[in-house]
Amino acid sequence: MYYSYAPKIISQRVLQLSGKNLFTRNNFVLSNISKKVQLNLLRNFATIESNTSGAEIPAKKHAPTKEVNFTTDKYTYLRRKNFKEACIPFLTQDDIKFFTSILPANGLIIDKEDDLMPYNIDWMRKYRGKSRLVARPKTTQQVSQILKYCNDNKLAVVPQGGNTGLVGGGVPVFDEIIINTNNLNQIRSFDPISGVLTCDAGCILELLDGYLAERGYMMPLDLGAKGSCHIGGNVATNAGGLRLLRYGSLHGSVLGLEAVLPDGTILDNLSTLRKDNTGYDIKQLFIGSEGTLGIITGVSISTPRRPRAVNVAVLGFNSFQNVQKAFLTSKDELSEILSAFEFWDINALKLLKAHNIHGKKFPLEDNYPFYVLVEISGSNKSHDDEKLQNFLEKLLTNEIVTNGVVAQDDTQITSLWSLREGIPEACSKAGAVYKYDISMPVPVLYQMVKDIRIRLQSAGVLGEDKLVSDVIGYGHIGDGNLHLNIVAKSYDPKVTNLIEPYVYEWTEQHKGSISAEHGLGLMKADYLGYTKSPPMISLMKQIKQSIDPNGIMNPYKFLPTQ
Amino acid sequence: MYYSYAPKIISQRVLQLSGKNLFTRNNFVLSNISKKVQLNLLRNFATIESNTSGAEIPAKKHAPTKEVNFTTDKYTYLRRKNFKEACIPFLTQDDIKFFTSILPANGLIIDKEDDLMPYNIDWMRKYRGKSRLVARPKTTQQVSQILKYCNDNKLAVVPQGGNTGLVGGGVPVFDEIIINTNNLNQIRSFDPISGVLTCDAGCILELLDGYLAERGYMMPLDLGAKGSCHIGGNVATNAGGLRLLRYGSLHGSVLGLEAVLPDGTILDNLSTLRKDNTGYDIKQLFIGSEGTLGIITGVSISTPRRPRAVNVAVLGFNSFQNVQKAFLTSKDELSEILSAFEFWDINALKLLKAHNIHGKKFPLEDNYPFYVLVEISGSNKSHDDEKLQNFLEKLLTNEIVTNGVVAQDDTQITSLWSLREGIPEACSKAGAVYKYDISMPVPVLYQMVKDIRIRLQSAGVLGEDKLVSDVIGYGHIGDGNLHLNIVAKSYDPKVTNLIEPYVYEWTEQHKGSISAEHGLGLMKADYLGYTKSPPMISLMKQIKQSIDPNGIMNPYKFLPTQ
Repeated sequence: MYYSYAPKIISQRVLQLSGKNLFTRNNFVLSNISKKVQLNLLRNFATIESNTSGAEIPAKKHAPTKEVNFTTDKYTYLRRKNFKEACIPFLTQDDIKFFTSILPANGLIIDKEDDLMPYNIDWMRKYRGKSRLVARPKTTQQVSQILKYCNDNKLAVVPQGGNTGLVGGGVPVFDEIIINTNNLNQIRSFDPISGVLTCDAGCILELLDGYLAERGYMMPLDLGAKGSCHIGGNVATNAGGLRLLRYGSLHGSVLGLEAVLPDGTILDNLSTLRKDNTGYDIKQLFIGSEGTLGIITGVSISTPRRPRAVNVAVLGFNSFQNVQKAFLTSKDELSEILSAFEFWDINALKLLKAHNIHGKKFPLEDNYPFYVLVEISGSNKSHDDEKLQNFLEKLLTNEIVTNGVVAQDDTQITSLWSLREGIPEACSKAGAVYKYDISMPVPVLYQMVKDIRIRLQSAGVLGEDKLVSDVIGYGHIGDGNLHLNIVAKSYDPKVTNLIEPYVYEWTEQHKGSISAEHGLGLMKADYLGYTKSPPMISLMKQIKQSIDPNGIMNPYKFLPTQ
Repeated sequence: MYYSYAPKIISQRVLQLSGKNLFTRNNFVLSNISKKVQLNLLRNFATIESNTSGAEIPAKKHAPTKEVNFTTDKYTYLRRKNFKEACIPFLTQDDIKFFTSILPANGLIIDKEDDLMPYNIDWMRKYRGKSRLVARPKTTQQVSQILKYCNDNKLAVVPQGGNTGLVGGGVPVFDEIIINTNNLNQIRSFDPISGVLTCDAGCILELLDGYLAERGYMMPLDLGAKGSCHIGGNVATNAGGLRLLRYGSLHGSVLGLEAVLPDGTILDNLSTLRKDNTGYDIKQLFIGSEGTLGIITGVSISTPRRPRAVNVAVLGFNSFQNVQKAFLTSKDELSEILSAFEFWDINALKLLKAHNIHGKKFPLEDNYPFYVLVEISGSNKSHDDEKLQNFLEKLLTNEIVTNGVVAQDDTQITSLWSLREGIPEACSKAGAVYKYDISMPVPVLYQMVKDIRIRLQSAGVLGEDKLVSDVIGYGHIGDGNLHLNIVAKSYDPKVTNLIEPYVYEWTEQHKGSISAEHGLGLMKADYLGYTKSPPMISLMKQIKQSIDPNGIMNPYKFLPTQ
């Protein structure tokens, strides 16, 4: 649950007039504003039921199933590389003996179909590997021993955290050994003066945030999958999330890493210093390397003070142009307290309703093409209230916003957030989802959604009873990050071919990135060239070759096969 | 000049009581505070003269001199590597022809002693190289051609920006060719929506900040050398500076780089996207690589909105314990608007006075062992004023602070900042300065200064007429970053041996970094092992070898010779 730590009531002065039209003359705040535009109150809003967010569903909650096709059946171009086969009978008695000597029985799964299943399938049920061996080490030393053994014996491995990735990077393709970080789950230290947390890579993001909440701090990142994802996985994929706009990327907040190289070398770079200019900043290479250079086993991270006050508003807009104007206004008026500026389109809201993700009552009607969730977090509630008021007033005066609600308490904050966070789940419930995660200049951000709709429509595949039922756009305006979700009956080659590489070409033309925050994994490895130049890719391959000469770390992914 | 952009008056409510004792009953804010502690007002403070900061002095302002010893005479262990000699007569007619074909006459200095001098000597006048050739390319293409030629011909090079470094990294040791970025000085683009600036590497930090000021934005870093240093040099050395605590490090704010590899390959990674998870984040390797992997030619950087209001206070403390308490209080009360928390000791203040750096009047007497400059920057002046007031009130109520002043206008803000920024110059005027730049946990930060004093005293070298006249401690509390300055008559081996490696061993014992923000350069290359483990250093060497196999980029520096 969001903000269980926050002050009990986020009472907006705007909202002290509960139940009244905000634009009556009695309203000292907004009395001069045109009556044409109205900011509705959230009446009885606290009664709205709230479900959990889609991205929170971890793989392990899936019932074992055989319905998911093997990745190799879908991606038929994939060829197994010349690693030693990590399954019986190719795994020798010596191999088994090695693994059982390193790990206790509950740290090892060998050849048990049902037990292996949740580790072989990603949570979207889009990728399915064929691994026969899952290792769940409890210490960095164990990770080191395992990797050294695998490297010496040319056994390929896939590092796996909470298995909440969206691009197939955390599950095997063939028979790679899965090294899962579930058991690396200890908090190592926390310094209440500097706010630096040091912990094992397998700690769950939400648990870390809860730990920090008790000490007046918070994690500098937050994302839908927080209930399952591991901080090690967050770092390995350079997860962005909902508050990057305020607290910056992990490249800035991660202070140190402990990582194990393929040859078993432990890189102890678990610095807790905010400044350290001694040599190449090696940890940066691991941030976003998606398990292709080694396994992250420990993380030091600088955490910000938990805000004393949090306010959330959801606003309705008539055009994307106005969404942008509101964003610019927020930079002026909310400035240092702005902590999220999220948007979604009317199609997303309709899906939320259709699939009952948010309960039966919605704070805003589906009359607006665009919705924005604005969150502010600060150290002084009355200052924050006033800033939010000034912001809303400016939007109303300039007729930028059409309608909106402001949360009155924590429950309402949670409820408003669940609108935004429920979108991935709503999409999943609607069918097979093609998910794209694109960053680009904000002015062209929604044009992509429109262009895709036109393309699918022209091809005759978009419509209620057609292959594609809906095209949804939502994401992080503050970071120029669009989540484009295309809901289809199933993953159909005809649809795939209409979307790809079109969506990547479009991105390249608009100087965007084909992966803003989800990473490359298996899904986008071969599309890297749409965002990075040949010399860049060549240098990446050179680094990979230098650190992982046998190529055992997460093969088939991240870098183009050619 | 600081904050010429800021609102005309930063009028503290505290200061509206100008001329009155703040603790009289008439004071609505602080009336309940003990009369024992007083917060003095800045009377006639605006008349105080303010000089420029020491670190702003660029090399080119030094008169040519032969007094500075050659680096090779001081560091006698250095051995020239087997590069082609880059001086006449070893430079052939073909070589000369190549350089003159690439660069115009004013972009090239060959063999002219006086013209070469400012490029061969660092601004501290501590290092002096023997280069006979300075190339000043104007385009990335020229940098590429030059590097390729040098690499093909095994000619060593040293990249040089504003030559304001403190560790000898930007000047040659032997006859390395100097590639200076002075002429790469164009702003390429600025996007007022995202706040992303793209520019050549040779743009001067202060000029960029001025350019942004006109557009309502600011550079996310600021440091004493801003009037001379280049943004490319800032990035290459991962400069920290005065506002890292608010805006984070360059690893977070730099969005893209254009860099030329030793073989002439141009890496075009000049992304302007806040999020881009496509492949290894190569640019991060170049941030802080000190010119050892290639030459940065272009920078894209995310810049924050310029604050509407800036307040500055300088406070006097009786103990370092209280400085820490004040820092913690600032995290609570000033939180999101805190933009600097700098400290210096009484010895620094005495030096400032003795060398007349700050004019004749000082806002605070030298009665306090410690001084802190607190800066806050925000979007709403009255909110900021109130927060500062709450902060000061809390410090007074808890008897943490002893005395203090709050700037009433921009001139006073500049004047207070010039205290902090004048310290390096004051030290330089006092003699030869041993400069150390250490980061460590805040609680032990000042202990190092004390321990060094005891050590030098015990050895009988510290005192008015002795080898060492003073030991000064100042720096960035918010980042746990101490600048330890040891003022000596001259750079004397006896003193050097007393300080080094002691200061590095001390740092290692306290889990600190031997270079918080200055980098390694020549000065600390061989001490890297005090902060980084052998596997880390080994991996760094592996990366260096992979990208610069001929070792032509800034040799003798950064990585240990052994």
